[in-house]
Amino acid sequence: MNKKTINMKYLFTPESVAVIGASDNPGKLGFHVMKSLTKGGFTGRIVPINPSSDKIMGLKTFSSITAYNGQIDLVIVVVPAKLVAAVFRECATKGVKGIVLITAGFKEIDDRAGTALQEEIAGIANDAGIPVIGPNTMGMINLRADLNASFTPEFSRLMKGSIALVSQSGGMSAVLGYLAMRMNVGFSKIIGLGNRMNVDFDQAIDYLVDDPDTKVIMLYMEGIDDPRKLMETIKKHSSKKPIIIYKTGSASKSDQASRSHTGSMAGRHEIYMGSFSQAGMLGVDNAETLLDTARALAACPIPDGPGVAVLTGQAGPGIAACDACEAQGLKMVQFTEKTQQKINENLPPLALRTNPVDMGPAWYNTSASKEIIKVAMNDDNVNGILFLMVFGSANVDALKGISNILNKWAQKKPVISCILSPPDIWDEQIKELEQSGALINYPTPERAANAMANLWRYREIQISREELY
Amino acid sequence: MNKKTINMKYLFTPESVAVIGASDNPGKLGFHVMKSLTKGGFTGRIVPINPSSDKIMGLKTFSSITAYNGQIDLVIVVVPAKLVAAVFRECATKGVKGIVLITAGFKEIDDRAGTALQEEIAGIANDAGIPVIGPNTMGMINLRADLNASFTPEFSRLMKGSIALVSQSGGMSAVLGYLAMRMNVGFSKIIGLGNRMNVDFDQAIDYLVDDPDTKVIMLYMEGIDDPRKLMETIKKHSSKKPIIIYKTGSASKSDQASRSHTGSMAGRHEIYMGSFSQAGMLGVDNAETLLDTARALAACPIPDGPGVAVLTGQAGPGIAACDACEAQGLKMVQFTEKTQQKINENLPPLALRTNPVDMGPAWYNTSASKEIIKVAMNDDNVNGILFLMVFGSANVDALKGISNILNKWAQKKPVISCILSPPDIWDEQIKELEQSGALINYPTPERAANAMANLWRYREIQISREELY
Repeated sequence: MNKKTINMKYLFTPESVAVIGASDNPGKLGFHVMKSLTKGGFTGRIVPINPSSDKIMGLKTFSSITAYNGQIDLVIVVVPAKLVAAVFRECATKGVKGIVLITAGFKEIDDRAGTALQEEIAGIANDAGIPVIGPNTMGMINLRADLNASFTPEFSRLMKGSIALVSQSGGMSAVLGYLAMRMNVGFSKIIGLGNRMNVDFDQAIDYLVDDPDTKVIMLYMEGIDDPRKLMETIKKHSSKKPIIIYKTGSASKSDQASRSHTGSMAGRHEIYMGSFSQAGMLGVDNAETLLDTARALAACPIPDGPGVAVLTGQAGPGIAACDACEAQGLKMVQFTEKTQQKINENLPPLALRTNPVDMGPAWYNTSASKEIIKVAMNDDNVNGILFLMVFGSANVDALKGISNILNKWAQKKPVISCILSPPDIWDEQIKELEQSGALINYPTPERAANAMANLWRYREIQISREELY
Repeated sequence: MNKKTINMKYLFTPESVAVIGASDNPGKLGFHVMKSLTKGGFTGRIVPINPSSDKIMGLKTFSSITAYNGQIDLVIVVVPAKLVAAVFRECATKGVKGIVLITAGFKEIDDRAGTALQEEIAGIANDAGIPVIGPNTMGMINLRADLNASFTPEFSRLMKGSIALVSQSGGMSAVLGYLAMRMNVGFSKIIGLGNRMNVDFDQAIDYLVDDPDTKVIMLYMEGIDDPRKLMETIKKHSSKKPIIIYKTGSASKSDQASRSHTGSMAGRHEIYMGSFSQAGMLGVDNAETLLDTARALAACPIPDGPGVAVLTGQAGPGIAACDACEAQGLKMVQFTEKTQQKINENLPPLALRTNPVDMGPAWYNTSASKEIIKVAMNDDNVNGILFLMVFGSANVDALKGISNILNKWAQKKPVISCILSPPDIWDEQIKELEQSGALINYPTPERAANAMANLWRYREIQISREELY
C-alpha cells in the first residue's frame, strides 16, 4: 500500500485538525468550517490558523501550522487559491496526513492558470503522499467520528448510520443529506469529491469497501474521466459491499436538434445502466430511489429469489404493491399447501387468503396475525415479505401485538414494510422496529415494493457476474 | 336533474346527521363514527340513534330516526346488514336526503343473499331518490364543512384544500390521507365509494365538477364495471377540471403461466393510459405521483408549452432536474437574446448562464437574483420555471430576499420548486410561499421536474382532445 492510501485512514479519523483560514466572521467559509468542527462534536484537537487572530471561537489560534508545535493529521483549507501552493508545501514539511481543500479557482475555472495551479499542488500532495479531498468541494463528513469537515454545520444533524455517500456535487450531497434527515436515514460518511485532484471515485471506493462503519456505498456522479479504470475498481470490489450509483448528465441540450430526445436519453441511459450492472453496481435514476435503495441494502439481507409474499392490512395497498412488484420483476409467490392451509385456518373464507393476504380480519386477534406472519415467513417459496398496514380504528394496537414476532424473526429474509399512520401515532414504534432490525419502512406501498425489487436486482447483478467470471 | 342528483348536495353539506348504531363502546364502529363527527368540528346537529342508550358522548340519543322530531339530512349507518333494509325504509319515510352506509356484508360477500340484500336496499334508495355512499365503505369526509362521516376520526387532521379524492379502497384513502397530512396537502372531500350501490365514479365526478370547493379530482380505481359509460362521463367533464387517475389491478397472478408479465402489464397499462388520455384524464402509476400531480394542478396555471427554465442555486440539482425534464417530455428552452444578455450581466462568466442557470454566485446579491428570476419569468420562450435551491451557509437569507418577487409575480406561469433545507430552517417560509400562491414545492429536484412534466402532459391531453372534437 502506498503512503497516500495509508494516509486515507488519518484523513477520515484524525486526532487533530487545523483550519487554514479559520474565521470569526460569519461571512467567511472559515467561520462555517470552524462551526462545523466545534458544534459537530469532534473530540480531537481543533487548531484554527489565522495570522491576524489570537482566538477564534474560544480556541487558541496560530499564525501557521508550522507555528503550532504538535502533530496535525488533517488540514482543512479555505484560503484563496493563490495561497494554496505555499500551504501545501507547509503541510508536506509538517507531515500532515490528509487535506480537505474547500477553496475553488483551480481546474474548474476557464483559465489555464487554474489548471496549472491544480497541477502544481497535485504534485506537492502526491510527492508527500497526502490524499486531498477537493479542491472546490463542500468538504467531508465522518459522522461516526463526529467529524464535520465541511462548510455546512447542519450536516452534523444527520443520524449515524452505515450508508456512505460519495458525491461529485455539493448541492446533491445537501439534497441527499437533508432528505436523509427528514427520513431518519443514517450516514457513515459523506465525501464531496470536488475536482477529484488525487481522491477520485476510485480511491473513495477503495477506502470505503474496507471501512467497517460502511455497509452500503452510494455514488452520485455527473461525468467520468476514465470510465474503464473506474469500472475495473468497481468490479474488484462490488461483491464485497453493495454500490449504488445515480448518474446524471444524460440529457444533453446540444443533441436537441439532431435527435429525438427520449430516444437518445433512453439509449445512453441504457448503455450506462448496462455497464454499471456489468461492473456489479446498481443504477438508479433519482435521488429518492437512491436513498430508498441504500436503506434497504443497509437494513435487509439480500433475497435468494424474486418470490414475494404480500401481507397487508387492507386490500387496496396490497393490490397497489402487487402491481409495483410485478412491474419491477418480482414474483407474487404461490404458498406451499401447508402454508396456505394455516392461513386459511386463521382467516375467514371471504378474505383474500392467497397472495396478497388481506390480514384485516385478523387484526382483532393477535395470535391469528402472528400465525399468518410466521407461516408466510417460513414458507420455502417466499424470498421476501412485504408488510403493509395502514392505521385505522380497528388496528390501533395491532402493531404492538406483532412487534415481538417481527423482532424475534429478525429478517431471516427481508421484511420491507409500509406501515403508515397520521403523524406521530405509530412513528416511534416504527423507528424502534427499524432500529432493532425487524424491518425497514417506506411511506407508500409502491416505494416499499420498489425497494424490495432493487434488493432482488442487486442479487441478480451479483448472480450474472458470478456466472460470467 | 333527478331527485337523487339534487340530494347529493345535502349528502355532502347536511344541516343534521343521524348515526344509526351510535355507540359509547370503543370496540364498535359506531363509537368511531360518533367521534369523527363530534371531534371533527361539525357545527350542524348530531343525532345518535341507539335503542338501548339515552346519551352517547353527551348527546341525547333516540331509539330511531322516527322517534326524533326534526329533519335529518344525512344518515350514517353502521348496524348489521340484516337490519339495513328496515333502516332504509324508515329513511325514505322520514325524507332523509343522503346515506353513508358503512355496514359490510352485501354484494362483496360470496353469497347470493348479500347480492339480494343489496338489490333490495338499492331499490328502496333509488325509489326515494336517496344517494348512498357505500355499502362497505370507510365513509366520506367533507373537510370544507368540517364533516367527517367516516369511522376514522384522524381524517379530520387533514388540511382544508381544493383536492378531492374518490377512492374505491378505504386503505388507499388512508394511505393518501396520511401522506397528505405529512406533506401539508389540503383536501376538499374524500369519498370512499365502497360497493358503489347508487353512487359510482360517474355520480361522484358529476357532483365534484360543479363543487366550488374542488379544483382537482383524484380517482383511485381498482376495477371498472362499465368503462364506456365512465369514459363518457369523464369526456363530458374533463375540460372543466383536471381529473387524475391511479388505477391498480393491472398485474394479474393468473396470467403468470401464459404470458410474460412485464409484456402483459405494459400492454394493458398502455391501453388503460390510452383510454384515460382520450377521455381527457391524466393517468399516474403510484400514490406519491398522484398526490404530487394533484398538488401541482391545484396550485399552478397550466403551461402553454413544454419549455422550461431551470433556475438553480447549485449545479448538481439543476443537472438532475434537466435530466428528469427531458426524460419526461419537457424542453430546456433557449432564452431570447435579451434575456440571456440580462442574465450574463448578473452572473460571472464562469457560472452556468444558459439553461440551467446556476444562480449560486448571485445569492450574495439579492438584486442580481431578482433580476435573473424576473427576466427568465418574462421570457416568451419560457412556459414554466423550475426553481431549485438547497440550503447552505452562503444562501441562508436568499429565500427571504426573493420572496417578494415570487409573490408579486404570482405564477403568471407555473413556478415549481425544490427548496430544501434541514428540517425547520426554511419550512415555514416555504409554506408561506405556497399559501400565497407564489409556487409549489417538492422534496427532490426530480419530483419537482416530474410535477411540471405532468402539468404539461395534462395540457397536451386537452390539446389533442380539442383537435379531435
